[in-house]
Amino acid sequence: MGSLPQETFNPLDPSTFTKESYAVVDFIADYYREVEQYPVRSRVEPGYLRELLPDSPPCSPQSIETILEDVRNDIFPGLTHWQSPNFYAYFQANASTAGFLGEMLCTGLNTVGFSWISSPAATELESIVMDWMGKMLKLPNDFLFSGGRGGGGVLHGSTCEAVVCTLAAARDTALSKTGGDGITKLVVYASDQTHFTVQKASKLIGIPPSNFRAIPTASATGYALTAESVRSAMEADVANGLVPLYLCATVGTTAAGAVDPLLGLGQVANDYGVWLHVDAAYAGSAGICPEFRHYFDGVELADSISMNPHKWFLTNMDCCCLWLKNPSSLVESLSTNPEILRNKASDAKLVVDYKDWQIALSRRFRALKLWVVMRRYGTANLMKHIRSDVSMAKYFQYLVSTDSRFEVVVPRRFALVCFRLVPVGGGGDDDGWDLNCRLIEAVNSSGRAFMTHAVLGGMYVLRFAVGSTLTETRHVEATWKLIQAKADDIYKDLTLSGLSSVAAQ
Amino acid sequence: MGSLPQETFNPLDPSTFTKESYAVVDFIADYYREVEQYPVRSRVEPGYLRELLPDSPPCSPQSIETILEDVRNDIFPGLTHWQSPNFYAYFQANASTAGFLGEMLCTGLNTVGFSWISSPAATELESIVMDWMGKMLKLPNDFLFSGGRGGGGVLHGSTCEAVVCTLAAARDTALSKTGGDGITKLVVYASDQTHFTVQKASKLIGIPPSNFRAIPTASATGYALTAESVRSAMEADVANGLVPLYLCATVGTTAAGAVDPLLGLGQVANDYGVWLHVDAAYAGSAGICPEFRHYFDGVELADSISMNPHKWFLTNMDCCCLWLKNPSSLVESLSTNPEILRNKASDAKLVVDYKDWQIALSRRFRALKLWVVMRRYGTANLMKHIRSDVSMAKYFQYLVSTDSRFEVVVPRRFALVCFRLVPVGGGGDDDGWDLNCRLIEAVNSSGRAFMTHAVLGGMYVLRFAVGSTLTETRHVEATWKLIQAKADDIYKDLTLSGLSSVAAQ
Repeated sequence: MGSLPQETFNPLDPSTFTKESYAVVDFIADYYREVEQYPVRSRVEPGYLRELLPDSPPCSPQSIETILEDVRNDIFPGLTHWQSPNFYAYFQANASTAGFLGEMLCTGLNTVGFSWISSPAATELESIVMDWMGKMLKLPNDFLFSGGRGGGGVLHGSTCEAVVCTLAAARDTALSKTGGDGITKLVVYASDQTHFTVQKASKLIGIPPSNFRAIPTASATGYALTAESVRSAMEADVANGLVPLYLCATVGTTAAGAVDPLLGLGQVANDYGVWLHVDAAYAGSAGICPEFRHYFDGVELADSISMNPHKWFLTNMDCCCLWLKNPSSLVESLSTNPEILRNKASDAKLVVDYKDWQIALSRRFRALKLWVVMRRYGTANLMKHIRSDVSMAKYFQYLVSTDSRFEVVVPRRFALVCFRLVPVGGGGDDDGWDLNCRLIEAVNSSGRAFMTHAVLGGMYVLRFAVGSTLTETRHVEATWKLIQAKADDIYKDLTLSGLSSVAAQ
Repeated sequence: MGSLPQETFNPLDPSTFTKESYAVVDFIADYYREVEQYPVRSRVEPGYLRELLPDSPPCSPQSIETILEDVRNDIFPGLTHWQSPNFYAYFQANASTAGFLGEMLCTGLNTVGFSWISSPAATELESIVMDWMGKMLKLPNDFLFSGGRGGGGVLHGSTCEAVVCTLAAARDTALSKTGGDGITKLVVYASDQTHFTVQKASKLIGIPPSNFRAIPTASATGYALTAESVRSAMEADVANGLVPLYLCATVGTTAAGAVDPLLGLGQVANDYGVWLHVDAAYAGSAGICPEFRHYFDGVELADSISMNPHKWFLTNMDCCCLWLKNPSSLVESLSTNPEILRNKASDAKLVVDYKDWQIALSRRFRALKLWVVMRRYGTANLMKHIRSDVSMAKYFQYLVSTDSRFEVVVPRRFALVCFRLVPVGGGGDDDGWDLNCRLIEAVNSSGRAFMTHAVLGGMYVLRFAVGSTLTETRHVEATWKLIQAKADDIYKDLTLSGLSSVAAQ
């Protein structure tokens, strides 16, 4: 048979590409203009979208205009708007023009840089950008490729991936001494404030869930770990025939922005031969400002450190930086060398093959995104950006302090303020839990702001995380007034119904 | 303190966003116009980029024009151009305008849909799109949300993630019966043609590497598994006190495009109570055409199936569909319920929280991308796209058959042709290994095409994978002429040097 293929269909025709991409750019620009007006937290009911969309995909093509109209009419109401200036929930995912441009380049070139040869620039730019970022954070040379001592970094999609991979490296190093049966003896340490991703990752790589230690923290240390508590836990495990494996310390915890003391924890980790990982997912970005760098003192004792530019470094989702002093242990654990990927450069061990530094084979050219962000803004503006958010958080903290019904409940370290309504008369049985639940729900259901909560030492706390790119001081002020007004309403209701916190005692 | 923040820096100013995004769109459109002229496989030497770029990021901002100029001058030479029409290596990562538009929307909105409430539309559109895709593939209702029997699907970034998660679900179901010590008894089955990601994932989740079975395949079955060989392996393991856990069958293997017999394997898996996963990463896209659907017969016996729209479904990287009959086992294994993410909809169990269906917490709004692809092109064009690539592969196969120096070495199933130069005089000691190595290196180093190789039953084979979006019949013809010309050169050299394959015998 030698018949030629049928008529072609060209989904990468450059002029259609340009025309339709412009339309989407315009659509997104309009979104940024209008996003302030949308309810921040979506108000839809579960299942809303299945009512609106057809059961099956269309047989014939539809125009981009039709699709964008449906995005506006059907999707927008179901969005919780992370780019709203009034989004103060979780930690932000701050978008930027440069982050978007970098992502466009990555998506447009659409390379898959698993091995060096599969797109050398993807690997090399990633190594360079990891060194750039490491230098901005003043990481010890041991973590940089340019340090020349075998260290280096990689871009993952999330902290969880970074933790899974470093845990696997630590586990396999340990098992190479004990044999495979030893896996049931290995113990992983974190605090009760550590991101739950560490517990999930620990279970994922086969550590028995009973061998995960969430060491309690207390308000006295601002919910940070203490070296003493970790040492005691390790001592007790060793006495019971278990093997301490891995300790995760956090700079900027999710609930309260707490900072674990790296220097003390590093000494304990080194004493017990434990892998120390530093999770700076959120606060890592602040490390570029000299005034925050002291929180990283002691990182020189760690084996690995990760931070997420997709949280607070103007880099659109997803982007997580992981540096290691000894990536060879990671590669040892994760490498595969199938014939189908064999090539001269890899065989000669002249190059980094990032497939061996991560879970998956496939990988996107994420380095372009971080590179464009760093270059388009420059370190001066990036520091300005961090300082502006911290400054707005400070201002919010000040506003809270002007209203005696409220209190700030933990020391603010970065751009997160944890506060609450003080229970009237010293608190009821629930220490103001219900009161603050009502307040946050009133604020969130207004659509005019979105905050999330945490529970610290049994106390229900409201988190005000500043960091959405579009947030300005006027938004912080307006949200504070909204919070005060909702508190007024709640107290009025309580008085009317006679069910005040005092009465409930 | 009540001082106001310093002057703002606005990295999401809509007019700058529009202007600079247009510039990048134009840049990418030009790239698609020009990519055919670039050497397909990069010719740079390891370390080339560090020579060109500064050691540290700039302090001051740089213009997008400067950055794009550097992308062109410094990055392009280091790219292996996956979007080149002459890229026939690995499996393709086929880009499209619609895939790009969908990715722009995802990146622009920049939501993080880990829980339903964190952006309900992100979760709901994903569930809908997974049903749409499942219907296109005629998957049994058991795998669809709309099937009403608890099944459903999720978008991951890669097959590896899908395999890690399903392995963890299978493992934890098994360990809930045996206790945690049982992990060292669990056995994972695949073939010697199964993607190495399964072996990597098995080790990652803590299965002892010695408990991974890569069951040999042979040319007689076109390098597909046989149900008998799997049954024997499981019998032997059970006899040795081990516990069969998980079997991965492949529709469209990486090396040869082979199809494992799902029906027979499903019966064995069911007999042994083993989790059957179907990896259709590459060939899954072909399942939308009725003439290829029979390769999926037996999928009704599987527990899970995955395929990658980012390979052959015009969906830019990254996008992997995973369907499960019983996602609750996955959720059981991967779920976490930290206070900080608690919300009414999740507490009431009214919604899907996709964070419990994957490794990471963070997740991008990938469903938009797949939704835009399906709508912008429609199923008719998507089938046309698959058929056009298959047709070009058939044509290449025909061309190979017209030159007696060559042979096609395995039956072509999809758009991958495995062929080689037949060793002169019946093959030397190396059965034509060196001859075909020389040929592929001559083709690839010409810059005019890029293929990769495989080793099948000890035989060195050239893979010609058709599927880059820009590939047309004229490219296939020109590449075939290039291959013939390089073969001419090699035979001429061999004759001149007297070192022919015959002589080497």
